Amino acid sequence: MTNNQINSVTVIGAGNVGFHLAQLFFSLGINVIQIFSRKMENAIFCAEKVNTEAINDLEKVKGEVDLVVLAVNDDVIGEVSEKIPVLQNSIIVHTSGSVSTDVLKKHPHYGSFYPLQTFTKNTPPNWKNIPICISANSPKSEKKLLDLANKINDKTYQINDKQRQFLHLNAVIVNNFVNHLMVVAQDILSKNEVDFDILRPLFEETAKKALNFSPSEIQTGPARRGDIKTIEKHLELLKDFPQYQFLYKTLSKSISSFYL
Amino acid sequence: MTNNQINSVTVIGAGNVGFHLAQLFFSLGINVIQIFSRKMENAIFCAEKVNTEAINDLEKVKGEVDLVVLAVNDDVIGEVSEKIPVLQNSIIVHTSGSVSTDVLKKHPHYGSFYPLQTFTKNTPPNWKNIPICISANSPKSEKKLLDLANKINDKTYQINDKQRQFLHLNAVIVNNFVNHLMVVAQDILSKNEVDFDILRPLFEETAKKALNFSPSEIQTGPARRGDIKTIEKHLELLKDFPQYQFLYKTLSKSISSFYL
Repeated sequence: MTNNQINSVTVIGAGNVGFHLAQLFFSLGINVIQIFSRKMENAIFCAEKVNTEAINDLEKVKGEVDLVVLAVNDDVIGEVSEKIPVLQNSIIVHTSGSVSTDVLKKHPHYGSFYPLQTFTKNTPPNWKNIPICISANSPKSEKKLLDLANKINDKTYQINDKQRQFLHLNAVIVNNFVNHLMVVAQDILSKNEVDFDILRPLFEETAKKALNFSPSEIQTGPARRGDIKTIEKHLELLKDFPQYQFLYKTLSKSISSFYL
Repeated sequence: MTNNQINSVTVIGAGNVGFHLAQLFFSLGINVIQIFSRKMENAIFCAEKVNTEAINDLEKVKGEVDLVVLAVNDDVIGEVSEKIPVLQNSIIVHTSGSVSTDVLKKHPHYGSFYPLQTFTKNTPPNWKNIPICISANSPKSEKKLLDLANKINDKTYQINDKQRQFLHLNAVIVNNFVNHLMVVAQDILSKNEVDFDILRPLFEETAKKALNFSPSEIQTGPARRGDIKTIEKHLELLKDFPQYQFLYKTLSKSISSFYL
């Protein structure tokens, strides 16, 4: 352990995030000291990939490490932190978007290390395109975490607890809700025997534009231009899909009121 | 005019769609006979690009043409069709997603020619990636329109009036509503002083997945997994944004009920 740099890390949790993070750190030349999983076989599977020790007992987490990353479910972060012996010389972080870092305050140096992306099993993440949001309870720890994040890519951000929670919330909007709209379209079209593929190029173009321009400036559509006639036509078409009719109404109202 | 192929076309309307369609037909070697716009200068501007006659009087539309394309606002399609002398030997189509082709039935051969994409001023459309949906009131006309569409690309579809209206409705969902969700995220983040760019890579990945997989099979998020605790946390965060809180609730409910 040095004073200014993170050279060693222990990863708690061998799920999607833990598994990929351990391999990332290893590939960056950072010493992976231990991998923990409640299930020993998972810990071993992950530890073997990064040449390190597997453990399934939190009391065995060693204090001689620069960083301890809790990549476990939101619900158990506090509990796991409590079971780890007080880490006097390490920074302990979690990777959650929505949990306050306060749950780690048993330890003197704590913070968050939040990679904002969806992780898919069996698909190696493209770390060059994953923003890393960090925070810590001291400028010194913050600096160390930022330096580590900068080794991963140039999309590193220092944000506070509240901002991270808002990011997580908006990740739901931009990921889960957007995908749901595609599900809705897929469902309505299939019930009318229309090939969903017809819509894909439009969605592709929509995404491209939203990525390259300011979304609020490129908004179009019946709700944006106050075209009540078309909106009513669409609501009539959706009369057999009351749930989607309500969704259509809600989104249209939200668009109109945004531009009032 | 030949019996089996569309070799000549007149374009009514010199707006975005008319302007681009006229140039497309011209580039495909189809004879553009006339361009109409209410404003003579617009008709001339467009006609000059395709070496043809500009008109601003619908009674002057010539009948000696294989296809007449009405690329005018939904509201005036019926009216414009009425003003054109009965076209005995041409197919007349409109390019609208939501208007019934019945409004063209004064003419013996009619249908629709619906390119499903957002058109942007000053940006030439990428016709290779724009699905063309056609319909007509006879198999013979349908065949001719399909052959024409096939010259543009291999994304040509034959759909009926109702299906086209559902496509148009879902284009609103997949384009306007998706963009609005980006606007919402942009707004919430900016009010919390968080850089919107942090979210862009996630949206990029979301779009990529929705394009390459079946959206209903890759749905994730708190609503999908019934994680009420996170949903409540997000609703609490949105307490100062009642409109977005309602939107969040509505979309979450829609997701949960889809997977019930």
